[in-house]
Amino acid sequence: MAAPGGTLVILGLGLIGGSLARALRASGFCDHFVGCGHRAPSLERGVELGVIDEYTLDLDEAVRRADILVVCTPTLTAADSLAQILPMLGQQGPVVTDVASVKGSLHRAALSVTGSMPPRLVLAHPIAGSERSGVDASSGELFEGHRVILTPVPGNDPQAVDLVRRMWRSTGAEVVDMSVQCHDAVLAATSHLPHLLAYALVDALAADADSDDMFRCAAGGFRDFTRIASSDPVMWRDIALANRDALLAAIDDFGAHLGQLRSAVEQGDGDTLYATFTRAKTARDEFAEILARRRKR
Amino acid sequence: MAAPGGTLVILGLGLIGGSLARALRASGFCDHFVGCGHRAPSLERGVELGVIDEYTLDLDEAVRRADILVVCTPTLTAADSLAQILPMLGQQGPVVTDVASVKGSLHRAALSVTGSMPPRLVLAHPIAGSERSGVDASSGELFEGHRVILTPVPGNDPQAVDLVRRMWRSTGAEVVDMSVQCHDAVLAATSHLPHLLAYALVDALAADADSDDMFRCAAGGFRDFTRIASSDPVMWRDIALANRDALLAAIDDFGAHLGQLRSAVEQGDGDTLYATFTRAKTARDEFAEILARRRKR
Repeated sequence: MAAPGGTLVILGLGLIGGSLARALRASGFCDHFVGCGHRAPSLERGVELGVIDEYTLDLDEAVRRADILVVCTPTLTAADSLAQILPMLGQQGPVVTDVASVKGSLHRAALSVTGSMPPRLVLAHPIAGSERSGVDASSGELFEGHRVILTPVPGNDPQAVDLVRRMWRSTGAEVVDMSVQCHDAVLAATSHLPHLLAYALVDALAADADSDDMFRCAAGGFRDFTRIASSDPVMWRDIALANRDALLAAIDDFGAHLGQLRSAVEQGDGDTLYATFTRAKTARDEFAEILARRRKR
Repeated sequence: MAAPGGTLVILGLGLIGGSLARALRASGFCDHFVGCGHRAPSLERGVELGVIDEYTLDLDEAVRRADILVVCTPTLTAADSLAQILPMLGQQGPVVTDVASVKGSLHRAALSVTGSMPPRLVLAHPIAGSERSGVDASSGELFEGHRVILTPVPGNDPQAVDLVRRMWRSTGAEVVDMSVQCHDAVLAATSHLPHLLAYALVDALAADADSDDMFRCAAGGFRDFTRIASSDPVMWRDIALANRDALLAAIDDFGAHLGQLRSAVEQGDGDTLYATFTRAKTARDEFAEILARRRKR
């Protein structure tokens, strides 16, 4: 397929898949959009909204018609979806990609189905989202200025990797390449662990005898810090299970740093507290500057 | 002193003290405002801005002239300030109060100076702040709709407690009474621990070999979660040292909850993860509703 043009199939039409279809229609990267899934209502809604042109409940038909097939089913389901799709792919089948938050589990799933990484399967992860979900919340601007991580592997068809890269660039995203392992470690540390910490903190407070006082007197810093504890429990359960090893490593690394701070508090070691807080503030301030520059572009 | 009217002395004129003076001038709760401190420049600036009417570097004079004296020096310094002031107080001296983030350390400091809690010393803590500091950042609206925690103790003069309560109410704040111990536990759990967690997380990431990738790919959730790691290292070192026991208890309670989640991840126990995340989400959503209602008032 030579972009622009061709048919994009979205398997699992929700916030991410719907937003991708909208963005690619706007950029002209694809000119025909087909939704696929198990149940008609959200797909019908997608047609109503003009996000997709048509839909099918038949996965075989969807694979046959696709130039690019994007698996947008939830993290744990994505492995099953791949297991169904991969055996249908030939040398000339569609390029298949995904949007899941964990890459190692899908990489392992693909290997277990086909024995080696299919050349035209290119795993990817757009770092973008919204508190809202579903195709009604989709937006063609969702990915603008956001990172999309591609995790190409040896054996991938370079043209397939290039196609997925150009697809994401045309949504206004910045594409970053990373190994599968590095992706999962980075996401564990910067996203999966923070969610776990926020859930653990709010759960600890809610279980406390002074719980009412706690929440009554909590201030703005607490609101920001715990915002991610309002995230979807099913999605985050699935991510925690799928990224088990990297998440355990991130928890333990964090635990070691927290343990050092705990010792410093216990021993009244103000120098260690000050040095650690200052290092962290410097890193956080630099990160905030990067984000601010990114938004200006 | 029968409010409205009388002289307010602010010891340590910064964001909080300046904002209090502005709010009490606007409400008419006091009609004369005197700053006191070790160094003239910020006090001169306070006069220039109209936050205070005059200033003195002489603590004895400040205590003599005050109807209400508010200790607004930083957390660790506040104990020294109290140690200087308390011996000067007679039955008819000013009502003394403070704004520090930890109450137990000041309560102990007062007891060690005077042997028993001075009747007219009423410890208090406004739960309000700003990223900015200094008298230039002060605002008469800083406390509107915010909580102020009063920690009266047996032996306190009820009229003194009432005066401090009315003072804070006149700024638009909602006053909540709590024991010293409960205050320190609540603040440890909802404020001091989250700061420690954010500092520990950012420090762990910054120390990682993949640190650049980490910060480059971190998303909005990470930005909110780590915002408080940009807080002033000196202030938070002092708070961590001053609230040692309550903070250690909060760290350990949190650590136990995090340990349960870690075990669930390790064992692939999705039910425990789902149940915990759901409990936490429910509590967080309720907290967000409380905050939203508060803002509407």
